[in-house]
Amino acid sequence: MIFDNTLFDKLINNDRRSVARSISIVEKNNQDSAELLKQIFPNVGNAYRIGITGPPGAGKSTITNQLTKFFRDMNKTVGIIAVDPTSPFTGGALLGDRVRMSDIGQDKGVFIRSMATRGSLGGLSKKAIDAADVLDAAGYDFIMLETVGVGQSELDIAQAADTTIVVLVPESGDAVQAMKAGLMEIADFFVLNKSDRPGSQQAAAALKTILSMRDHDENSWMPNIIKSVASENKGIPEINDEINRHYEYLKKSNKFIINREKRMKVRIKEIVEEKLSKELWSEGRENSLNLSLEKVITGNYSPYHIAEEILENFKNQL
Amino acid sequence: MIFDNTLFDKLINNDRRSVARSISIVEKNNQDSAELLKQIFPNVGNAYRIGITGPPGAGKSTITNQLTKFFRDMNKTVGIIAVDPTSPFTGGALLGDRVRMSDIGQDKGVFIRSMATRGSLGGLSKKAIDAADVLDAAGYDFIMLETVGVGQSELDIAQAADTTIVVLVPESGDAVQAMKAGLMEIADFFVLNKSDRPGSQQAAAALKTILSMRDHDENSWMPNIIKSVASENKGIPEINDEINRHYEYLKKSNKFIINREKRMKVRIKEIVEEKLSKELWSEGRENSLNLSLEKVITGNYSPYHIAEEILENFKNQL
Repeated sequence: MIFDNTLFDKLINNDRRSVARSISIVEKNNQDSAELLKQIFPNVGNAYRIGITGPPGAGKSTITNQLTKFFRDMNKTVGIIAVDPTSPFTGGALLGDRVRMSDIGQDKGVFIRSMATRGSLGGLSKKAIDAADVLDAAGYDFIMLETVGVGQSELDIAQAADTTIVVLVPESGDAVQAMKAGLMEIADFFVLNKSDRPGSQQAAAALKTILSMRDHDENSWMPNIIKSVASENKGIPEINDEINRHYEYLKKSNKFIINREKRMKVRIKEIVEEKLSKELWSEGRENSLNLSLEKVITGNYSPYHIAEEILENFKNQL
Repeated sequence: MIFDNTLFDKLINNDRRSVARSISIVEKNNQDSAELLKQIFPNVGNAYRIGITGPPGAGKSTITNQLTKFFRDMNKTVGIIAVDPTSPFTGGALLGDRVRMSDIGQDKGVFIRSMATRGSLGGLSKKAIDAADVLDAAGYDFIMLETVGVGQSELDIAQAADTTIVVLVPESGDAVQAMKAGLMEIADFFVLNKSDRPGSQQAAAALKTILSMRDHDENSWMPNIIKSVASENKGIPEINDEINRHYEYLKKSNKFIINREKRMKVRIKEIVEEKLSKELWSEGRENSLNLSLEKVITGNYSPYHIAEEILENFKNQL
């Protein structure tokens, strides 16, 4: 299937089936996908992107749902990319999906797409971010990128947002584990969900202590901690306020553009490297590599020697 | 610091400090690291590599410890690369380390190296596999690569072995979650640890059912399920027997060489791509990319257009 002008027109007019079809195209990450992304690019960039991440069971889906309803009450449309099931040993994602579907899934102003990690050998973060571009071109006001904060590629997704929220629960050690996972570095603010549980005060205090150890001057952004009980819809307006406060900071400090430029740089590099890699691994060079392998395994040839040969051949044939 | 002949001589004579220093060099993944790997390559390939993976808390560290002691009783030396703490929200890894150190850490025939996922932005699987090469060159008979089976890069590490063991526990749903995580595809056999727990029979049966659904003919390897209670040292000889049975199968089917060739192919491709990427992203091209970003963000220029320009420039300047 090829992305044509009819599909393009329908997509930018937010025809639901065309949005779904377009995301399916970018998920394939092939030539069609590249064409589609090229064509929609001028229509991309108007949505505000929110990344939501955190450990399994912290309540990310619930917060995404409640925040979506909050945005809908302000008459804003919402696109959601949920990367599920992220942590292979936790489950929960499917349940989250079911709750989500019955709740906001029928709303025409909301588009939800789940992307599975299973079977996605690499390229997951690219596909998720490309899908966000599709939703952006389709005109959604907010795009939420929801992932479990486990593994580099999922952190990449959560970071591909204007505002990144890390959701934690008051369980002991959660803050320390989040620090280990690199979540501290990517959080624009924290949501301490299920904050009606015992240990909530101590967890917030521990988080504050860890945050105060970060390098920061008076002009830099200092992540806040917002308390919520998302299942009872408590703390959602406060989360929205904090998103707005962060947005104002980004605008004022010019970081809104600077950060988008940084993310664009990473994407352009990926496009270049992918194209180059395709040219590099032509059938001829694949075959010659295959023929060399036996010599390498028997120790007659070093892999570095073979690598040099392939590179020379590539450069000479350009 | 540069890898010189003195360090090389000491490394291949299994001088412990030189092994540690050499691994620190490959962890940096720079020019020194490439030189080192090039120089040790003729000495690499004699060790038998065992990958051990599975969900957090399944008992991977305990099995690695007990298996190490079993190998030591046969007078074999053992090198261990433990990728810790793998799943950021589980903990346990540090405790595993402490148990390990008091147990086998003092044995001169055992070398243990922990590699942290934190702060390792990419390249983790390369570094872990390079470190295994160092241990191989140093003359260890067995090399164990232990990782939590969460995330692609950690599955890559566990698969960079002659025999890959997936450790599960009888908890309900573990087998299904393992299937989702792609562990079914990489297991040469399963260890059902803590098999004295209730539900052990059902878990083994569920696992067998899932396994029987895989495509296989009479000549292909069918993964077995070995039961263990590693904390009581039960099932360890059976695990060793299964490793031997798998090794015999690999030898007989010629897959021992074929699989090593496949893995070598992946590594050579990585070497080529890394070198090419370094040449591609020269200071000049980095700068010109930086200068284009503003035009892309304001929508005047498409990222695909910039990518094409960079590629053309690269090809013309080769």
